[in-house]
Amino acid sequence: MDAEEFRRRGMEMVDYVANYLENIEQRPVYPDVEPGYLRSLIPTEAPLEPDNYDDIIKDVDRVIMPGVTHWHSPYFFAYFPAATSYPALLADMLCGAIGCIGFSWAASPACTELETVMLDWLGKMLNLPEHFIAGTHGHGGGVIQSTASEATLVTLLAARCKAVRRVQASNPEKSEAEILSKLVAYTSEQAHCSVERASLIGGAMIKKVPTDNNYAVGGDMFKKMLEEDKAAGLIPFYFCATLGTTASCAFDRITELGPICNKENIWMHIDAAYAGSAFICPEFRPLLNGIEFADSFNFNPHKWLLINFDCSTMWVKKREDLIGAFKMEPLYLKHENQESGKKRFRSLKMWFVFRMYGIQGLQAYIRKGSNRLNELLLKRITKSREIHLVPCQLSGRFVLRFAICARTTDSRHIQQAWRHITQLTFEILQEPNH
Amino acid sequence: MDAEEFRRRGMEMVDYVANYLENIEQRPVYPDVEPGYLRSLIPTEAPLEPDNYDDIIKDVDRVIMPGVTHWHSPYFFAYFPAATSYPALLADMLCGAIGCIGFSWAASPACTELETVMLDWLGKMLNLPEHFIAGTHGHGGGVIQSTASEATLVTLLAARCKAVRRVQASNPEKSEAEILSKLVAYTSEQAHCSVERASLIGGAMIKKVPTDNNYAVGGDMFKKMLEEDKAAGLIPFYFCATLGTTASCAFDRITELGPICNKENIWMHIDAAYAGSAFICPEFRPLLNGIEFADSFNFNPHKWLLINFDCSTMWVKKREDLIGAFKMEPLYLKHENQESGKKRFRSLKMWFVFRMYGIQGLQAYIRKGSNRLNELLLKRITKSREIHLVPCQLSGRFVLRFAICARTTDSRHIQQAWRHITQLTFEILQEPNH
Repeated sequence: MDAEEFRRRGMEMVDYVANYLENIEQRPVYPDVEPGYLRSLIPTEAPLEPDNYDDIIKDVDRVIMPGVTHWHSPYFFAYFPAATSYPALLADMLCGAIGCIGFSWAASPACTELETVMLDWLGKMLNLPEHFIAGTHGHGGGVIQSTASEATLVTLLAARCKAVRRVQASNPEKSEAEILSKLVAYTSEQAHCSVERASLIGGAMIKKVPTDNNYAVGGDMFKKMLEEDKAAGLIPFYFCATLGTTASCAFDRITELGPICNKENIWMHIDAAYAGSAFICPEFRPLLNGIEFADSFNFNPHKWLLINFDCSTMWVKKREDLIGAFKMEPLYLKHENQESGKKRFRSLKMWFVFRMYGIQGLQAYIRKGSNRLNELLLKRITKSREIHLVPCQLSGRFVLRFAICARTTDSRHIQQAWRHITQLTFEILQEPNH
Repeated sequence: MDAEEFRRRGMEMVDYVANYLENIEQRPVYPDVEPGYLRSLIPTEAPLEPDNYDDIIKDVDRVIMPGVTHWHSPYFFAYFPAATSYPALLADMLCGAIGCIGFSWAASPACTELETVMLDWLGKMLNLPEHFIAGTHGHGGGVIQSTASEATLVTLLAARCKAVRRVQASNPEKSEAEILSKLVAYTSEQAHCSVERASLIGGAMIKKVPTDNNYAVGGDMFKKMLEEDKAAGLIPFYFCATLGTTASCAFDRITELGPICNKENIWMHIDAAYAGSAFICPEFRPLLNGIEFADSFNFNPHKWLLINFDCSTMWVKKREDLIGAFKMEPLYLKHENQESGKKRFRSLKMWFVFRMYGIQGLQAYIRKGSNRLNELLLKRITKSREIHLVPCQLSGRFVLRFAICARTTDSRHIQQAWRHITQLTFEILQEPNH
């Protein structure tokens, strides 16, 4: 295939992609196939001579599509979302064409530098503390990882390295193996399983902190565990807090946990994989209060910020903590301004998406609803005369107050009112151009 | 941006990509910029309101391209190659549109199944031992990783887990920490730095085996180190052999090393990151002899097999060794046929490339030269009458024999002959349609 044929085939593919995404609602969201369905539909070996391109595209419809779980179907409510947008798809085409592998500045300066600047842009959107912004002289900054699990692993390993060095500095007679056997990491019992896996990989013990009735970890429970563990001769070194747990979107109380970690020399990592995107809206930003105590912070724009997988953004307070833990310097990589990790030019899709939506566009996407919609709903409720309620304003938002007022109201009436409200809401959302 | 605008912008991007790759030879391969060049060229914050798409594309030329190291320039001879091809780019567009995250069968059956079948196709192209082919009932099989470094880490961790379990089975009183402190991994002193990094992450000791004059590790030296280490109470558990080292493409002697590893219960991993692609040609396949002793094997089609980064293919003899080392089962992921790891639909690009080139096309790409070219070169040499040599046939290849024959030949004559041969070769390769 030469450039000319690629032009033709590429345009066909753009059209195929546009049709797929435009009509995805018509496809069954979950495929009706049994394990092993695909193997019988294609040959057992690669062809000796080239196939025909048209046959490959026919096979996409015959072999692939019937077995796809359509993550971008509006009926997909499983796991978490996988973000996608047209600007991100365009940027990924460019990323594929440039096809550089950015493991050092020299391997592609634009790739390394755009990534740093995009992480600054995003960090400012989230109003992160100044020490997480690389700026031109900062000690901290951000990098793109593939997944939040990877960010957890990387920070746990950096924390392990730092802890071993600290203990050895005051106890030079202790071996690394001896120290490792005493290290304890902590996380919520509601945390994602990748935190436990990271500790397993790092060879460190992990303890799960019980949560309160809101599935959140608070300071008291954590402090109690720490005291017991220290008394038993263990060395607490890492705490992974979750903002927005997988099961119920619970928020650990980092304003309580942060000061404890700082005082005890425990690395605090904050995993906000799903919920983090919401912090670009000022009204959700208070949920991130306490971030100033953290050593590292991570969330996934590839979940909820319109940037295709993979794009998991991680910030550290001190870059040297990461670099120090993984540094290796073979001659063939030795070059000024070296970094580590092999990466594609993933920052291009951040750049395209941030610019094509603008901060306001991204905020509107997170909010989805609008004051206008809420006002319209109240008008319909009032017009229907079945129930009666009045609105209020909270931080610039038009809010419908639902107060239980009458002595005669019981559970039956509340349920009936709720059915009525949801029915009217549904009708509004069904209307074109709502 | 709606589907209609994406159609238009997508077609423009296809054209941009085709122009970029068609004319890449004209661009300076290494950019003339200083660290920090990019930050001053773009705003310090994301725009509040959307930018204009045309401005973004103008900025690709103004901001990005001047800072790109062009990995696909014909003048790029640094590091290793990063493969690319038009069929792979097309497949990646489709991959982005489907945008599934395949961490389990249910998350996208087609993604999981095509990957297994493509790894079987590729495994058969390499003539891997039957136990690496998943087929429909095999215990082994292949998966795609992002990098060879990742494959090394994953197999080292699996080997560590297996070793700890084995030691504990016969010594139940030993703690995991105690066993960990005795584990030793081995690799060549010429191995890629990622092997040392993997052992650092896994908290295991690593020893580097000295190489012979060809920069290869042989059995005797390895055996000697093993005996000493076992006598000192250490527990050898992992050996990473390299086929095609980074510095000089040296090949460890796996036919000698394999039986030692098997006898000593040491996991043998083979890292053929760069060289592995060559094994699809029967004439290079003997370099892989000894693979039958390995527990795992990895190479990077994204280096030399026309498949865009990332596509690092790894096979294991027993899938359960990997699954057992990393299994975690939260309810929200619990589903029949679970796997682990979050991945994009990377097997699509394997499928497109294998089918659009065919095995013969891929082999021709690896070989690049041809018998016809060698014959032509000999004709020109003969016609020029400056030196004289004769050909031979070796395993179906037309080979030019260069024998030092005359008593009067000294180093000066050989150098002059070499200059003559390279000059004629250069002329042939410059001719259109060579």
